[in-house]
Amino acid sequence: MSTIVSVDTRDIRFPTSLELDGSDAMNPDPDYSAAYVAIRTDAEDGLEGHAFVFTIGRGNDVQVAALDTLRGHLVGRNVEELLADMGAASRLLMHDSQLRWLGPEKGVMHMAIGAIVNALWDLRAKRAGQPLWLHLSTLSPEELVSVVDFRYLSDALTPEQALEILRAAEPTRQERIAHLLEAGYPAYTTTPGWLGYSDEKLDRLCREAVADGFPQIKLKVGANLDDDIRRLGIARAAVGPDFPIAIDSNQRWDVADAIAWVNELAGFDLAWIEEPTSPDDILGHAAIARGVAPVRVATGEHVQNRIVFKQLLQAEGMQVMQIDATRVGGVNENIANLLLAAKFGVPVCPHAGGVGLCEAVQHLSFFDYVAVSADMDGRMIEFVDHLHEHFVTPTVMERGRYLVPSAPGAGTEMLPASIDEYTWQGTTAAASVTTATASV
Amino acid sequence: MSTIVSVDTRDIRFPTSLELDGSDAMNPDPDYSAAYVAIRTDAEDGLEGHAFVFTIGRGNDVQVAALDTLRGHLVGRNVEELLADMGAASRLLMHDSQLRWLGPEKGVMHMAIGAIVNALWDLRAKRAGQPLWLHLSTLSPEELVSVVDFRYLSDALTPEQALEILRAAEPTRQERIAHLLEAGYPAYTTTPGWLGYSDEKLDRLCREAVADGFPQIKLKVGANLDDDIRRLGIARAAVGPDFPIAIDSNQRWDVADAIAWVNELAGFDLAWIEEPTSPDDILGHAAIARGVAPVRVATGEHVQNRIVFKQLLQAEGMQVMQIDATRVGGVNENIANLLLAAKFGVPVCPHAGGVGLCEAVQHLSFFDYVAVSADMDGRMIEFVDHLHEHFVTPTVMERGRYLVPSAPGAGTEMLPASIDEYTWQGTTAAASVTTATASV
Repeated sequence: MSTIVSVDTRDIRFPTSLELDGSDAMNPDPDYSAAYVAIRTDAEDGLEGHAFVFTIGRGNDVQVAALDTLRGHLVGRNVEELLADMGAASRLLMHDSQLRWLGPEKGVMHMAIGAIVNALWDLRAKRAGQPLWLHLSTLSPEELVSVVDFRYLSDALTPEQALEILRAAEPTRQERIAHLLEAGYPAYTTTPGWLGYSDEKLDRLCREAVADGFPQIKLKVGANLDDDIRRLGIARAAVGPDFPIAIDSNQRWDVADAIAWVNELAGFDLAWIEEPTSPDDILGHAAIARGVAPVRVATGEHVQNRIVFKQLLQAEGMQVMQIDATRVGGVNENIANLLLAAKFGVPVCPHAGGVGLCEAVQHLSFFDYVAVSADMDGRMIEFVDHLHEHFVTPTVMERGRYLVPSAPGAGTEMLPASIDEYTWQGTTAAASVTTATASV
Repeated sequence: MSTIVSVDTRDIRFPTSLELDGSDAMNPDPDYSAAYVAIRTDAEDGLEGHAFVFTIGRGNDVQVAALDTLRGHLVGRNVEELLADMGAASRLLMHDSQLRWLGPEKGVMHMAIGAIVNALWDLRAKRAGQPLWLHLSTLSPEELVSVVDFRYLSDALTPEQALEILRAAEPTRQERIAHLLEAGYPAYTTTPGWLGYSDEKLDRLCREAVADGFPQIKLKVGANLDDDIRRLGIARAAVGPDFPIAIDSNQRWDVADAIAWVNELAGFDLAWIEEPTSPDDILGHAAIARGVAPVRVATGEHVQNRIVFKQLLQAEGMQVMQIDATRVGGVNENIANLLLAAKFGVPVCPHAGGVGLCEAVQHLSFFDYVAVSADMDGRMIEFVDHLHEHFVTPTVMERGRYLVPSAPGAGTEMLPASIDEYTWQGTTAAASVTTATASV
């Protein structure tokens, strides 16, 4: 029997804005950051649960404060009891009525709870000696259903329907585990497509992406239509006629603008348009999907919870679901999202990049393939080759495919040296912007 | 010319859970709290801008941290420039791309920005020597439109349409100002209806509400159907057959449950069903509205921003809009909400109660009557007779009507003695719950 003895947090920021990596139409100068948490116990195994919320700089301190305020719910608790019922562990935090007022189930407080849930899953997978994807893939349909909060979902997905989906995939799990271990899982790359890059760099990186074996690239769009047409021309010439190119406007448009703009670009044969408008605008997504068909609408990296995903599916506003590992209430809520996608027959192509998002979200796609959708067709995980070196078990990419990790845990543990080096002291690029603003 | 010299914050919590005031189906033990902010300048007038985010206890510290992180955007800025263009002042915070990542436009960070915007309006109204409602009611349609962020609204409301609405009301503003000064504005009371109260207390408070002149009462429901039927019977007997009774389930139900439960209660002649399900579930609200008609659906106290309000109107999921003064991006976003309601012909009956919400939100209803909807019919502001004594200009209620305040400002300034007495030191009821949890 062991007890949680500490919940340690760190404000970690990488000064990525200095290189314009990650620049898009809405986020010109992100400093990729992590509000980081480590759960420590008094068990003799010395195992710890690590996780984080990804942010892009300023406000990472607020996200850390939200993690700090959850400490009192955890320290002193029995670890085995918590880990044995991960549904109850999530509800302990998610159903705290006073904390719920700060959302409900959205924004800073929701993401903090999600990180705690993810840290507990990291600890649980380490104790099981399994990578998280495999650990989840060995749970019974009943246990998987028990971790999902079905509140507000029952008009679209009931526990019984979720069980049906999981039971249908159960007999053939081992075949897909074997296939994953052998072949990995497809990735697509956003590396060529940042708005801040020159045409020459765009052209070179597009060619490299094809040479590296990626099956799809993605370009940021939405700042200037003429630029988008020129850049898509360069990209299409670089990758050839039949190679999939997705575009991403990062919520730049209103509904009518989105439809008009995408239709101007549709001649470039687009794989999908991502985040055409506000992630809150379900009816807007539905109108855009109708207006740009057959181009598919993809969204999800900013979708706040399962309730919005449910409606995007009900309204046919989203043809590709892009879950994010640290936006929602952790692994539990993402299992709900995967089940919703399976119910509606929509492929899941997770959002990744940032810092640590590739490491974290890959486990969910592998699990989706093994135990939920049981399908790899048309599915791929975003990949950006950036900041992986700071993780204990960095992603491994080979010929455009994620190789599946075998190390125990959720992939969310950062190297101690990186944690120390990038702990924010008010001196990174992120801080200098705030300081400059304050001194006006 | 003057400069912002400090942005001071406080974590203020009232131990209301000890009395079960404010208890409902989702919030059994709230500790009404305020993440409080005061903006101070070096001007000789000594005027300050005060505002707060209302929370119900735990997590108020996180909300304060969000206010703290905005300090750097404000200290050192020219006050006159900020106050002269409140649209730009809001965008300065709302469009900070790094902070936006934490929402976008929802939850802790959004509410913090809203409080800063409200504090600036408080300061601006004080400088103008006017109560906020009157100050807003003297602005030109063009200036009012300039403070609204129309991003993501244009498929439902354009700046031109907003101008039309405001211009239609402009010639007769003075008549309505005179009427307000003479007759005040209708209130309804939730005081009788908290779930934690005994049947005897419910009966007595219902009779008192009628005697006090309130035109409507509201009961909390949703924990137990038999209890709801019994309590509605007591209330209906106490107030008589034609007196409006609204009910509020505080997000307790899924869609099918909401329809079935409300239809069980419909025989009590309900004024509206409030928050039947998740505030995020636009399609769910629409289904419920169809399923419980002619009972109207009311919602808004947890609606995160104008984009969700827009859709609730588009989908006909909300027949009564309940704006909240501290949930969204401040006065600016609430002007957008009022304009949306006017465009769709839906009455606005604000959420209030808590601590300071009556003081704050009344200004928006008065302004709505004078300059936006130009209508008082079917509109009323929630009232709970609780914690008003902590404010510099507490609400004044007479025969069930809010009397309009004449003191300059937004009504959001707390008394210094109350601020000091209730600044959280980890010793209120809220804290004791956290401590109990931690020591398990």
